[in-house]
Amino acid sequence: MSKGDLLSVRDDIRVVDATLRDGGLCNDFYFTDKFVEDLYRNNINAGVDYMEFGYKASKDMFNPDKFGKWKFCDDEDIREIVGENDSPMKIAVMADVGRCDYKRDIGPKSESPVDMVRIATYINTIPVAVDMIEHCNKMGYETSINIMAVSKNRTEDIRAALDIFGKTPVNCIYIVDSYGAFYPEQIRSFAQMYLEYGEKYNKHIGIHAHNNQSLAFANTIDALQEGVSYLDCTVNGMGRGAGNCQSELLIGFLKNPKYMVEPILDHIEKYMLALKADGVKWGFDIPYILTGQRNSHPRTAMDFVKANRTDYKNLRLDLLDME
Amino acid sequence: MSKGDLLSVRDDIRVVDATLRDGGLCNDFYFTDKFVEDLYRNNINAGVDYMEFGYKASKDMFNPDKFGKWKFCDDEDIREIVGENDSPMKIAVMADVGRCDYKRDIGPKSESPVDMVRIATYINTIPVAVDMIEHCNKMGYETSINIMAVSKNRTEDIRAALDIFGKTPVNCIYIVDSYGAFYPEQIRSFAQMYLEYGEKYNKHIGIHAHNNQSLAFANTIDALQEGVSYLDCTVNGMGRGAGNCQSELLIGFLKNPKYMVEPILDHIEKYMLALKADGVKWGFDIPYILTGQRNSHPRTAMDFVKANRTDYKNLRLDLLDME
Repeated sequence: MSKGDLLSVRDDIRVVDATLRDGGLCNDFYFTDKFVEDLYRNNINAGVDYMEFGYKASKDMFNPDKFGKWKFCDDEDIREIVGENDSPMKIAVMADVGRCDYKRDIGPKSESPVDMVRIATYINTIPVAVDMIEHCNKMGYETSINIMAVSKNRTEDIRAALDIFGKTPVNCIYIVDSYGAFYPEQIRSFAQMYLEYGEKYNKHIGIHAHNNQSLAFANTIDALQEGVSYLDCTVNGMGRGAGNCQSELLIGFLKNPKYMVEPILDHIEKYMLALKADGVKWGFDIPYILTGQRNSHPRTAMDFVKANRTDYKNLRLDLLDME
Repeated sequence: MSKGDLLSVRDDIRVVDATLRDGGLCNDFYFTDKFVEDLYRNNINAGVDYMEFGYKASKDMFNPDKFGKWKFCDDEDIREIVGENDSPMKIAVMADVGRCDYKRDIGPKSESPVDMVRIATYINTIPVAVDMIEHCNKMGYETSINIMAVSKNRTEDIRAALDIFGKTPVNCIYIVDSYGAFYPEQIRSFAQMYLEYGEKYNKHIGIHAHNNQSLAFANTIDALQEGVSYLDCTVNGMGRGAGNCQSELLIGFLKNPKYMVEPILDHIEKYMLALKADGVKWGFDIPYILTGQRNSHPRTAMDFVKANRTDYKNLRLDLLDME
């Protein structure tokens, strides 16, 4: 794995736009077709390497009348936007352990516009995740594995998980800071640990950061410096709670001339400001600092923000009570 | 200098609240007395080590009718708030090279509530800065020196400056990221350079970060990890342009039990939300990313924000033209 410096270009870098998927958690995946078409086009022009369209959720478990179509990512809906995807950008979807019917809903890659299936698991559901990786690999897809909420896990268990996933055909293993709880020095040491297994098993390592403590971009570029190469971001940071590493920060930072920030700026001006004005809520805010500092699930903060509360001290006390 | 880890307490740390001073740049220093009284009290309760009240600007150069009193920081105005300052928190003011009449306006410490004079200079005005340090030292104050905008300076010149200031009686030398242009790996290497001189000349090293690229907190704690000990922050990040390292992030991060984040949360709820609602502008926003990425003065972005413009691509082009 290369590391590079602030002036170098690393060919192993892959920028992964997760706006529809993580951002969809903020508006139940109700994006207009125009939004998605323009995002697809803007991402291509910005040099984005993968665009994640949403989840492959099971329609038996989730009522399609209550979510936009990107909760389910039917092949034909993606096809509607990308056609034959005549571009260098690859298409990704996410499949959550326990929330999808992967054997039924994820068929052969030869019939699908999808290139990569990103599998999301907690550390206690690894056997299913392994089965999903093997299924998707057999179907012909690239795969990545997101081991979520590792800031709550024991290092020994994370190492055991990395060893298990190292032996699967998965292409990329992600460091996921679900709670926005990691500080840069922790991310650097996590990156070293994940890269140790990445080198042993020949896997790429990725990072998916959250911005609870205003560290999503810092953690992403610090992981990058250590050798992590798959970098998740979302336009304007749109994502659950405090949101993600902003594409406009990451793409403006990367030195490879294929990355252009202007199309991202366009998308922000044309769409993201209106989404915010319409009341879709995401992004760095005091309540998320407090859950991040406590290494807690952001749900409490999301409810607090949704209720337009500002009694931050009470939230802090509530969080202490939840430990 | 100690470094510590995420669980340790370092006795050399000094948290410096710069809300009135850097924040005053956003509202021409028009804070209500109640704001300042409560900030003083909240800072004490939060464990803040120094509170900067504003500038010592010359009333010959700046019309007192056009600015709030914290642009000038008369001793009697500070006294009005702090009385005899019967607290462990020290009082600081900033004096800008070329914008103050220090020989007239900075008298003996024995007659003043001020403990520390923070002197701000550019690299080309060092002789005046040295004279100011010597004057303030002779008057009995602690002093610090902020060498501003070093992201635009040559390393050789910065080293020469550090050597000059090392030989003065200054107590602390600050790394100042005026343009919010530094990435964490640069801050870490700057910290090492400044600490080299700090160790040689027995000076503390400080950091004053700006949040243009959402890195103010990350850069502050990365500098801290290297051994930097004077840490500037402002409540809710209030400060020029993209603002500063947020007190609520920094104080919530520090492990010394004397630091309490609750009083800062109180101040945000009671005052900062209203300031923002009243139209006082500061904080992370797209235009500041663009000046930060170009290592440019934030003025262009501030004008852009003030004009409520959102044509980000044009700003980016304008910035290219300014190089």
